[in-house]
Amino acid sequence: MSGQQAVEEAITARRSVVNDAIDTRLPMAEPEELYEASRYLLEAGGKRLRPTMLLLAAESLANAAPTDPDYGAIPTAEGDAIDVMAAAVSVEIIQSFTLIHDDIMDDDDVRRGVPAVHQEYGLSTAILAGDTLYAKAFEEMLETGAKSARSVEALSELAQTCTQICEGQSLDIGFEQRGAVSTDEYLEMVELKTAVLYAASASIPATLMGYEGAAEALYGYGLDVGRAFQIQDDLLDLTTPTEQLGKQRGSDLVENKQTLITVHARQQGVDVDNLVDADTVEAVTEADIDEAVGTLEEAGSIEFARERARELVTSGKENLQVLPDNEQRDLLEGIADYLIERTY
Amino acid sequence: MSGQQAVEEAITARRSVVNDAIDTRLPMAEPEELYEASRYLLEAGGKRLRPTMLLLAAESLANAAPTDPDYGAIPTAEGDAIDVMAAAVSVEIIQSFTLIHDDIMDDDDVRRGVPAVHQEYGLSTAILAGDTLYAKAFEEMLETGAKSARSVEALSELAQTCTQICEGQSLDIGFEQRGAVSTDEYLEMVELKTAVLYAASASIPATLMGYEGAAEALYGYGLDVGRAFQIQDDLLDLTTPTEQLGKQRGSDLVENKQTLITVHARQQGVDVDNLVDADTVEAVTEADIDEAVGTLEEAGSIEFARERARELVTSGKENLQVLPDNEQRDLLEGIADYLIERTY
Repeated sequence: MSGQQAVEEAITARRSVVNDAIDTRLPMAEPEELYEASRYLLEAGGKRLRPTMLLLAAESLANAAPTDPDYGAIPTAEGDAIDVMAAAVSVEIIQSFTLIHDDIMDDDDVRRGVPAVHQEYGLSTAILAGDTLYAKAFEEMLETGAKSARSVEALSELAQTCTQICEGQSLDIGFEQRGAVSTDEYLEMVELKTAVLYAASASIPATLMGYEGAAEALYGYGLDVGRAFQIQDDLLDLTTPTEQLGKQRGSDLVENKQTLITVHARQQGVDVDNLVDADTVEAVTEADIDEAVGTLEEAGSIEFARERARELVTSGKENLQVLPDNEQRDLLEGIADYLIERTY
Repeated sequence: MSGQQAVEEAITARRSVVNDAIDTRLPMAEPEELYEASRYLLEAGGKRLRPTMLLLAAESLANAAPTDPDYGAIPTAEGDAIDVMAAAVSVEIIQSFTLIHDDIMDDDDVRRGVPAVHQEYGLSTAILAGDTLYAKAFEEMLETGAKSARSVEALSELAQTCTQICEGQSLDIGFEQRGAVSTDEYLEMVELKTAVLYAASASIPATLMGYEGAAEALYGYGLDVGRAFQIQDDLLDLTTPTEQLGKQRGSDLVENKQTLITVHARQQGVDVDNLVDADTVEAVTEADIDEAVGTLEEAGSIEFARERARELVTSGKENLQVLPDNEQRDLLEGIADYLIERTY
């Protein structure tokens, strides 16, 4: 089995158990519309990359058997056992809450190939669904059975992560009103908006299991590969067919979102604001986007972003030396590569 | 000094220290617009009733000196000392987050006499400001220095409370689309939307300080007086002059919000949906509202609500017997009375 195939199978296997756990841990409840709306996006799909990273880090630290680990009883550094699946569900719920609220703010109508939650249930219920998931994520993170002091650390990390995600989203919105943004400013925004949740996902199992040194290294891993993930997302917005993407290709250009690609292109003198004429994703044509992508390629901006993502993956993987030399560590390396090799 | 005067002075004194603590614990940060928006409503005022209740419960349990207690070092049942002010700020921050998001959902443009956050900063920043405060509240609740096991209990209570607040707001929104709602349904909604945060505020200091029996009784106190508070709020919407209220008097009637008064009136055969003709708070006149209030008085609905609030205050206060017989316990009784005697 090739390395890439092993990684894809590892992701698929963990996605399946995470999906089951979400179903069990976030059951339907009253009021029905609120819980339907809260579960809607989680049920629509998603790769579950953050919980998969969390589970693999836990498995590697515990040197858990590669097949069929009991996520409800992962041995810690202190001799007890904890339920890491509760933490895995928690980070996926946070991700889902941020998507619901982001889609309102960004006025994005489609997500994962289905209408965004505010389109399906209205603005009020979408805001409330996000708020409900927010609380549920904190409830879940307290359900691991970890020692109280460890739970407090993990909670504190999760809360700070949420604050940073809001700060990142606020910077992102602010950038839409601005012209020139520097590469460093862009990467700081991405760190806050996207990478800190990867970092928390990778490090929280080490925190809960009492491996403090590993927690720090895994945080560094998540921060680097999380930024690489976002850069790849920005690249895929330009290169993946609309159907596969689950939303209109090139929508970032139409909506004047800053990406590492446009930041670089602007520095090369490209008139980024006029790369596509259309003001809405409904009005843009595939030919418009092809032409814009051609201009960005000529400016070297696409290759610049690809290279930066590769560098981040390389530096991120170096942190994994702190883990035991086992199959799960290899898979965490492989996931880092996968994040920038994926085509959707 | 009369009892009522003592209560008002107790509230004023604690409001002042809570305001100072909010300033210190929620400082301005980057991105500036996000933190300005997050602090905007907190700076616009507020009675700080929930943190005051929390501080008084802590003081009573600790038998702290009535003057100048050191909130940063309140003695617990277990011989250590904790910073209850961090918990007090946490519950006020939660309250502020819910108001910001509620004002978006209810399309309310004015709050505390100033524009609502979404009016002043726009929808996106208002959603994000609420989300930021949400995380900050959890961060603060971890700053009390309580034993980890106590912090985990308090955190869990806070998270469950937030879930319930969302459920209550969802029911409230659903009620606006419905005609008849029973008294029990209305009171369940109020319990979730409003009373659970009073209950958490009253009981969390006991949880953090290790008084488990008292935590349960104080929760019951908060649940009853919190419901009474909401009923009084509904009454004040009809009876307090617009200027003093900080928003248009009678706005609940214009917006077809269900209140205990309208629920009762509908049961008496009053045509509640047509009590005022105006569809917007801008279009309604004081005379329209006076006439509607007259109809509600004739139906006995206003007196029905007043009586129910009085009963809840009486039953709520009975829970306070669990506390030491001291001045702070008297003040918690007095605050319960104040909640339904206040005129704004």
